[in-house]
Amino acid sequence: MATTTIPGYRYGQVDPSPVTETDLDLLKQTLLWTDDDTAALRRAGEILAGRVDDVLDLWYGYVGSHPHLVRYFNGADGEPDPAYLDAVRVRFGQWIRDLCTRPHDADWLAYQEEIARRHLHDKGRTDGIATTEPFVPLRYMIAFIWPITATIRDFLAAGTDDPDEVDAMHRAWFKAVTLSVVLWSRPYAPELW
Amino acid sequence: MATTTIPGYRYGQVDPSPVTETDLDLLKQTLLWTDDDTAALRRAGEILAGRVDDVLDLWYGYVGSHPHLVRYFNGADGEPDPAYLDAVRVRFGQWIRDLCTRPHDADWLAYQEEIARRHLHDKGRTDGIATTEPFVPLRYMIAFIWPITATIRDFLAAGTDDPDEVDAMHRAWFKAVTLSVVLWSRPYAPELW
Repeated sequence: MATTTIPGYRYGQVDPSPVTETDLDLLKQTLLWTDDDTAALRRAGEILAGRVDDVLDLWYGYVGSHPHLVRYFNGADGEPDPAYLDAVRVRFGQWIRDLCTRPHDADWLAYQEEIARRHLHDKGRTDGIATTEPFVPLRYMIAFIWPITATIRDFLAAGTDDPDEVDAMHRAWFKAVTLSVVLWSRPYAPELW
Repeated sequence: MATTTIPGYRYGQVDPSPVTETDLDLLKQTLLWTDDDTAALRRAGEILAGRVDDVLDLWYGYVGSHPHLVRYFNGADGEPDPAYLDAVRVRFGQWIRDLCTRPHDADWLAYQEEIARRHLHDKGRTDGIATTEPFVPLRYMIAFIWPITATIRDFLAAGTDDPDEVDAMHRAWFKAVTLSVVLWSRPYAPELW
């Protein structure tokens, strides 16, 4: 799907992030990020490109089977809203592609801040949903590092016969997810971040 | 080392956590925590028990080689304080043992809150250090999930010939570290956690 056809997807069109390139550089040092990680993530993106719907089926099955998680897709009536779930799903798929392929530049930083804002301050607004849940708690934003990382390995392994390549791609994915969640946590504690 | 000889280690003697057992249960559901994880973590604890100093050497080498990280061990003169580094190191070793072996009960929850407090509100007080860095930023608390998880795998692999057991132990360790960081993040954003 061309990114321009995704409702609410505004990569490259949002306000700058307050996070500086120096901040980002230090975070990537903390994650021992190397050019090999960038390359492995690109390769992961090629493998995952054809499996995005399968990954989303797995993740949505996981969220949907946990009432304490799917509630964050509630509409105004306090029940999960199928239109909300569907609208987010298309952008979540694009997030997989972006995570693997986008350069870590000012546009990327800006969009991580936008994603953070949509989870915290403006939840539902992108899709015109009057949700009963005003924000996704920080606890689940951080906890999701585990399922989002652990579940991707089998998809990566299905794309290559080289176990070292699987390890390299999975390592880079784990780093990239952790980095994303770090950036998404900023507005939850701006003075302590 | 007997736990009672560790300066500043007060497991079982600190105030209760505001996090409820229901909160914890939902977090563990989010991490798909099972009895197998508990068992794998116990086994990891047996393997790591004899390697704690080696793990700490690796982690301290990593922190020490990054000025933007080791600064959180600064004393009043703005330089890393060897006494501070040493005092934390002994408790960090005990944290490895506790992570693998302690039941997830009220004492455990209380001590995660205590660890959070020491990183945020009372930094240095346990060791009588007047540090120039009043708190460890949330960004690094979360980012540390990656190095603390990634670096432990080789230690686990050295303790068994069964690759499935390594996977199980590493999975449980990753979940446990993520859960710990989730709990340590609470006082950074108490209203949004």
